[in-house]
Amino acid sequence: MAPFLVLGATAVSLDPEDWTAWRAQGHRMLDDMFDHLQNLRSGPVWQPIPDAVRAEFQQDLPLGAGDLTAAHERFMSAVRPYSVGNTHPGFMGWVHGGGTVVGMLAEMLAAGLNANLGGRNHMPIEVERQMVRWLAQIVGFPETSSGLFVTGSSMANFLAVLVARTAKLGTVVRQTGLAGQGRLRAYVGKSAHGCIPQALEMAGLGTDCIHWIALDEQQRMDVSAVRVALDQDLAQGYIPFFLCATAGTVDVGAVDPLSELADLAHAHGLWFHVDGAYGALGMMSPVIAPLLRGIEQADSLACDFHKWGQVPYDAGFLLVRDSDAHQRTFASPAAYLRREERGLAAGSPWPCDFGPDLSRGFRALKAWFTLQVYGTDRLGQVMAETCALAQSLKARIQAEKALELMAPVTLNIVCFRYRAGQDSNQVNREIVIRLHESGLVAPSSTVLAGHVVIRAAVVNHRTEQQDMDTLVDAVLRIGAALTEKGQ
Amino acid sequence: MAPFLVLGATAVSLDPEDWTAWRAQGHRMLDDMFDHLQNLRSGPVWQPIPDAVRAEFQQDLPLGAGDLTAAHERFMSAVRPYSVGNTHPGFMGWVHGGGTVVGMLAEMLAAGLNANLGGRNHMPIEVERQMVRWLAQIVGFPETSSGLFVTGSSMANFLAVLVARTAKLGTVVRQTGLAGQGRLRAYVGKSAHGCIPQALEMAGLGTDCIHWIALDEQQRMDVSAVRVALDQDLAQGYIPFFLCATAGTVDVGAVDPLSELADLAHAHGLWFHVDGAYGALGMMSPVIAPLLRGIEQADSLACDFHKWGQVPYDAGFLLVRDSDAHQRTFASPAAYLRREERGLAAGSPWPCDFGPDLSRGFRALKAWFTLQVYGTDRLGQVMAETCALAQSLKARIQAEKALELMAPVTLNIVCFRYRAGQDSNQVNREIVIRLHESGLVAPSSTVLAGHVVIRAAVVNHRTEQQDMDTLVDAVLRIGAALTEKGQ
Repeated sequence: MAPFLVLGATAVSLDPEDWTAWRAQGHRMLDDMFDHLQNLRSGPVWQPIPDAVRAEFQQDLPLGAGDLTAAHERFMSAVRPYSVGNTHPGFMGWVHGGGTVVGMLAEMLAAGLNANLGGRNHMPIEVERQMVRWLAQIVGFPETSSGLFVTGSSMANFLAVLVARTAKLGTVVRQTGLAGQGRLRAYVGKSAHGCIPQALEMAGLGTDCIHWIALDEQQRMDVSAVRVALDQDLAQGYIPFFLCATAGTVDVGAVDPLSELADLAHAHGLWFHVDGAYGALGMMSPVIAPLLRGIEQADSLACDFHKWGQVPYDAGFLLVRDSDAHQRTFASPAAYLRREERGLAAGSPWPCDFGPDLSRGFRALKAWFTLQVYGTDRLGQVMAETCALAQSLKARIQAEKALELMAPVTLNIVCFRYRAGQDSNQVNREIVIRLHESGLVAPSSTVLAGHVVIRAAVVNHRTEQQDMDTLVDAVLRIGAALTEKGQ
Repeated sequence: MAPFLVLGATAVSLDPEDWTAWRAQGHRMLDDMFDHLQNLRSGPVWQPIPDAVRAEFQQDLPLGAGDLTAAHERFMSAVRPYSVGNTHPGFMGWVHGGGTVVGMLAEMLAAGLNANLGGRNHMPIEVERQMVRWLAQIVGFPETSSGLFVTGSSMANFLAVLVARTAKLGTVVRQTGLAGQGRLRAYVGKSAHGCIPQALEMAGLGTDCIHWIALDEQQRMDVSAVRVALDQDLAQGYIPFFLCATAGTVDVGAVDPLSELADLAHAHGLWFHVDGAYGALGMMSPVIAPLLRGIEQADSLACDFHKWGQVPYDAGFLLVRDSDAHQRTFASPAAYLRREERGLAAGSPWPCDFGPDLSRGFRALKAWFTLQVYGTDRLGQVMAETCALAQSLKARIQAEKALELMAPVTLNIVCFRYRAGQDSNQVNREIVIRLHESGLVAPSSTVLAGHVVIRAAVVNHRTEQQDMDTLVDAVLRIGAALTEKGQ
């Protein structure tokens, strides 16, 4: 390998040549982000990306060195103003958390430390282990539960399917695969997030394994329908293995009857999983927790700290009651991952024994800082406040003749539409687009029973009553203009 | 839902009550990280965690609010000093990048912006799209390739298996699953990373589907062995679908004969995947690139920017030549993800159409900043330098009678051992532990053909010749003490 030798061993570290200058630049960057976060309300929620800005990001791969200040200026002029807007108080689309200064600073620390939480013997892993215990306390799981941070609940739900699959078929399935297996069956509500069928696809079970469960009038899984489905499937020789309930459905924020479903699942030997992507952390609030009763009986739970928890993206989490079943699904021997009793390779088991990632950033730190600084009482209060705002929005909608409430409001999601007769779907789609373009508020849309509806998910801790008023006023104004009622 | 109403709609935002104080605290935190990074060499690579420090992270869930300064002090006193040490120039364990100031600052910006890159119409997604094009340019993929950031190559390899599975069986497999399928067959070198069999496990194929391929004397997949395996399997009615090669094997840093394997795979209609977790970015260096010839013929490629790319954890990447095949594997319709022509819901396809995550942090920004500031020439030079250091280490080992080189040195990984006769395995394990405990240097260990070896993976841009010398001197000293030769 002679070519390398000619390079010699001169230092080419990427550390700053001028530490003072880069430190000063770092402080300017931090000040810019503080300015940004301190003045969110003065800007638009969102604005369209000008073609010229988009074109700036078409240039070729940079071969030569550039300038840190110039890169930051590009960020400030071309990226920051055209971001999605979920930090803004007027954002209420999809289910996005608002982030905090605390989370930003913790993420900076984590990136400077550059820890890899796949394994090894170091304190960042202890921080993550503490987060596992804290989340178990929050949702009422046993202290012995296992868990780990992942990108988001889509991944957490997928890993839960794998644990359930192994629990049913044994670890031999890791070797044999599914080709020779009988037909496993999963019970999933029609309101489940699309990542649940996707998880079953990825695991090789296919969406055909799903017995879709009808909803009751509160948009919750119908327990009696699950019972009927189980009887049918058992009679036909299927192997029921997985019951997935949702705490906070994506379209309307309904909570499935967790306690009844837990009983039913366990009576039939099914793995009971709860997709609590956005709802589970509501357990921090004494007014929301009663609605989530039964979550503590789950075998596994997916949730996202970057939604109601306001931790910056991404910070999903998987919690598993039976840590042995969890570890059996993922742990593997590998010579280069050998464990020792002392030194850097001690401290087994490692997070890589509980999930697929060997390279894992220090997500735990931003969540740990968030809990340390705010405490669960205050975070719970923020979540309850978003529910209170949703109730206020619901009341206003019910008071406006031009508007129609389209779904029950259980938590913090309100689905409604502008009454526009036969043109309703088209008008409401256009209203949402024009709201985005207005920069005032940003709900999203969804489709309920064939009807396009405006969907306001109040998640951001910065959202206030005035934003609810702005939303309704703007919908009425745009709706009237579109239907010419107001003209 | 009356309980929520009593809370009223008073502002309970998590924004600072005193912006000035938190801004000042933020600047102190940034200064602390600059101090940390500027003085890495003055501290130990790693040190054992005192029991008292570990115990600090056993306290109960915080219900009440805490103090940002106090949380930061906990971080500084209890986390930072006991981290894994991969930022330190003496770290050469596993394959960990060193991180940079640039990456830290970019991650701070990303966390402040709090963008979710699952979808929607915003500039952060354009930054990621530019990174897709840039990586395609780096490794010689077509401009039309698709790709996305993931946690790490373990995930990227898994997603590649899913794309290959869909390409072979059609999108119907998403529906039917694998239960009724014929036996697919994957060709994997014996030196492949453990995440490859795990990817096949997770996808429901099972490790039984693997035809393990023997290695040649350079520790590379033996092409003729693949040919024999294919003939055998076809004769037995298996369905070959996936050939996985490695660019930079985990144990010794070998590069499989990519070009020959590409030809063979494509002649047989197999999906040709390259696990380039740490090696692929070597394409930035004109002296490393020739060793990776053939990587540009892959159907998909996994790589990690947080290894040789020095981007902070985590920043894995999947690149796929055929974007249609990629999208067919993951895209799903969902009412709450409806796309529009204008507004926030425009800009389809979204990253969530190319992978399982809907919640995705802004990993692209730290990688974009890294390329903008350093350029590929300098990053390539850093990688070549680590290879030069590995060659220098190899030469020193070969010159020391007490040491034995245990594998060819292709890139930047050197496997060797202290000669200790029958006690060799035990002695070399103990040497690595004592090196960790010394705080001077931190290699890892692995097992090659039953022999425990000391494995130095030179990845960090801060590592210099003096660290190679420190390693050898310390191994000789500790080895002599353990075997009493020097006494």
